[in-house]
Amino acid sequence: MTTVSRSSKPVDADALDGFDHETDVLVIGFGGAGACAAIEAAEAGAQVIAVEGASGPGGSTAQSGGEIYLGGGTPTQKACGFDDTADDMFAFLQAALGPHADETKLRAYCDGSLDHYHWLVDHGVEFRPTLWDSPTWMPLTEDGLMWLGENSHPFDEIATPAPRGHRPPMAAFAGMLLMERLVATATEAGTDVHTDTTATRLVLDGGRVVGVIARRFGDLVTYRARRGVVLTTGGFVDDEQMLAEHAPQLLGHGKVSDGRDDGSGIRMGAAVGGALRRMGTVQTALSLVPGLTARGIVVNALGQRFINEDTYPGLISEAGVHHQPNPIWMIIDEAGYEEVPEIDRMGMVPTFVDDDVAALEAATGIPPGGLAASLDTYNRFADELGTDPHFHKADRWVRPLRGPLAAIDTRLGFAGAEGVPPSESTGASGFTLGGLRTTLDGEVLDVDGEAIPGLYAAGRASAGIHGERYISGTSIGDGTFFGRRAGRAAARA
Amino acid sequence: MTTVSRSSKPVDADALDGFDHETDVLVIGFGGAGACAAIEAAEAGAQVIAVEGASGPGGSTAQSGGEIYLGGGTPTQKACGFDDTADDMFAFLQAALGPHADETKLRAYCDGSLDHYHWLVDHGVEFRPTLWDSPTWMPLTEDGLMWLGENSHPFDEIATPAPRGHRPPMAAFAGMLLMERLVATATEAGTDVHTDTTATRLVLDGGRVVGVIARRFGDLVTYRARRGVVLTTGGFVDDEQMLAEHAPQLLGHGKVSDGRDDGSGIRMGAAVGGALRRMGTVQTALSLVPGLTARGIVVNALGQRFINEDTYPGLISEAGVHHQPNPIWMIIDEAGYEEVPEIDRMGMVPTFVDDDVAALEAATGIPPGGLAASLDTYNRFADELGTDPHFHKADRWVRPLRGPLAAIDTRLGFAGAEGVPPSESTGASGFTLGGLRTTLDGEVLDVDGEAIPGLYAAGRASAGIHGERYISGTSIGDGTFFGRRAGRAAARA
Repeated sequence: MTTVSRSSKPVDADALDGFDHETDVLVIGFGGAGACAAIEAAEAGAQVIAVEGASGPGGSTAQSGGEIYLGGGTPTQKACGFDDTADDMFAFLQAALGPHADETKLRAYCDGSLDHYHWLVDHGVEFRPTLWDSPTWMPLTEDGLMWLGENSHPFDEIATPAPRGHRPPMAAFAGMLLMERLVATATEAGTDVHTDTTATRLVLDGGRVVGVIARRFGDLVTYRARRGVVLTTGGFVDDEQMLAEHAPQLLGHGKVSDGRDDGSGIRMGAAVGGALRRMGTVQTALSLVPGLTARGIVVNALGQRFINEDTYPGLISEAGVHHQPNPIWMIIDEAGYEEVPEIDRMGMVPTFVDDDVAALEAATGIPPGGLAASLDTYNRFADELGTDPHFHKADRWVRPLRGPLAAIDTRLGFAGAEGVPPSESTGASGFTLGGLRTTLDGEVLDVDGEAIPGLYAAGRASAGIHGERYISGTSIGDGTFFGRRAGRAAARA
Repeated sequence: MTTVSRSSKPVDADALDGFDHETDVLVIGFGGAGACAAIEAAEAGAQVIAVEGASGPGGSTAQSGGEIYLGGGTPTQKACGFDDTADDMFAFLQAALGPHADETKLRAYCDGSLDHYHWLVDHGVEFRPTLWDSPTWMPLTEDGLMWLGENSHPFDEIATPAPRGHRPPMAAFAGMLLMERLVATATEAGTDVHTDTTATRLVLDGGRVVGVIARRFGDLVTYRARRGVVLTTGGFVDDEQMLAEHAPQLLGHGKVSDGRDDGSGIRMGAAVGGALRRMGTVQTALSLVPGLTARGIVVNALGQRFINEDTYPGLISEAGVHHQPNPIWMIIDEAGYEEVPEIDRMGMVPTFVDDDVAALEAATGIPPGGLAASLDTYNRFADELGTDPHFHKADRWVRPLRGPLAAIDTRLGFAGAEGVPPSESTGASGFTLGGLRTTLDGEVLDVDGEAIPGLYAAGRASAGIHGERYISGTSIGDGTFFGRRAGRAAARA
């Protein structure tokens, strides 16, 4: 066989001496999107092999909070007392993920959401019929439902609010439990999983993708796919060069991934002519404590507020990290601080405390009068009206901030890059949302908008339902939903 | 010949019955980058044909202000009393175009800037030795030098300030004069210009780019390039689908272009495996009057200031349009308004005028107290210290704003989309900065970082020296500088 470098460029089938493995559908990467593609392909009667570079399945989905954005009136929503419709879900997501979310994909996603809920439940995923009813990143409970900003401004006026964050019954990082179930289902359905196997190049036969070349430890292994190859390799936050080329705003921040989101599938797809879409769109999480932000205010380096602090913390993070002068500070009084149980504070403690706002400004480096002006305006309306007419934090959370105030430096928190000393941390981390341009069925399109025969993509190797923003649950939601469609399409090809 | 659709995909040389035209170097698109590529290639002894889709040469450069970002101690700078170094130029551009500007390209650009100045002058471009010494988009004079933010915060502390915006002697849109000279030089050097000729597909011979297929009115015309094809087709702001795929933040805004920045060169390059870079980076101009902004304040929809208003208006625009709640308002008192000559106000007039700030808030929709808080803080320090400790506008422009104040709605201004009624205008327009990934010599790289034989790109068909921001003069600067290198490299291939 010809020597194969670490290139992403395709190899001609003629250059290979046959294939080591052969199957109908070949799934590359065995996380959330890959598992769902494999299940659907196998249930459609196709023989399926999934190759995964890690030593076990799960991908980045297994390392996540495991939220899946679902709605339209799921049994879990109903059990918690909420009606919901696909139209309200669509209206919310268009606003929250927008501007410029892909309407066709988003419409299909919302219209198919109730069915997707049932499919997940039928395939082993459990959602407890209880709601966590307060802003949070991930509940430290087994509650099956959570808000993701639907009841916060401006979304509460755009669509009838209903919580749509569905999650398996595990405290905090429930993605592990989600993937345990999906992997078990995929395996039972007949998926043959090849771990420690990293696909590096697609194999072409006259313009059609017919397989891949992979590395397993020192060896090259070749796979032939009779019906299709589905790229579910994840995003590219772990590849510094791709970040610099496409999403430089994440350089220097931490990475939300399993360490293997190296963009390999995107590069393999691009190398056979696959078009890219929205490669600069990212998710970002800043070290914010939702219980504290809702009860206090969040300000930028000049002491200015910039968003309603009771909305989903991912939206506060995106606005703060990418659109405001940093650092970002959480400002809270003693009463608000004490209301949040220590475990929910996620290790965050006051950086500076002072009775005197001017002293707090000096300590934080906020220019004189910057924080005072924000507090004056906030407290005046909180006092007089009990409302927040500037940023529309819900009345539930509005009251004047009094007495000694704490300023908490978000750079010192939990969401920064691992191994980075606090003095260099940004307190933020993220992952990428752009990728290959695909149809609703995961077909990878070329620059002319034509499908590349034999090639499919889903999950973060593709561009999904996201506009310029992100809400938790929509990456696993989009990945599992369109992963299923890609698996089905490949099986019937 | 095979039927050729509007596809961007390459054609095999074998599929053609010879070529209609043959040359050494083929330049696609005859704007600023194309003209410089053609001049260098011709002066290196190559036969050069330039094909241009419009009926005349000039491209978007001819429709622009014609500023070229040059420094390092040019004779024009020296005549105006400024010393400058390549290192100061680099430090400024790294900050102003950053974060995440391409350091290698930026270093080469700055180190070669003085030479590029002399080359431009030697090839017919004139810069008068006089300075326009006030913030502006483009002087309505024939001054040869202008500031582009170098003397504003934070850049005045990052590098020794020197004005580096060089421009031909013509009021406002001097790009026409620039292109008149460069086109004349290119033609005299022997470039054969084929207008009304739109290249649509590259021609490949065994992995090497050897020509293009073009349309001229109803006919197909084929070109063979013995040494190389240089893509200088501009960006993609005129292609709504590419905008939606790559730079959706410009959707709905106006377009800064000659109407032909359709991304065709980027698509042709991508279709032969060219890698893309920074496709989401854009330039944006909001309808701001620099004389008014410097003398007043600029606030967002909540009445908050967000930048020093004396910096280059392109930076205020970028911050305002893409990072702040819109609309953006210019706030000015009568004294400040009257100081700016009517011709410099560019048609902008007060939208609302009132003695009472609360009434102005009500008229503009700024929430109660939002504008008042900004004015209180600004006026307090202007009164007491004559400085702006929050945003660091230069003392020269700082004085309290008193008496009746005008609020000017930037949506109603000159920079919006043509033909859009004022009620739907955003007051902003822009162009794209991302494109094909290239080496310093304009070689187009594939996803593995290897050069595609025979293919070069420069100007806005390529990704240049820009990070996440833009300064005027750097697009024509980068396009002419790296266009020259691409032309030389193609000629010697």
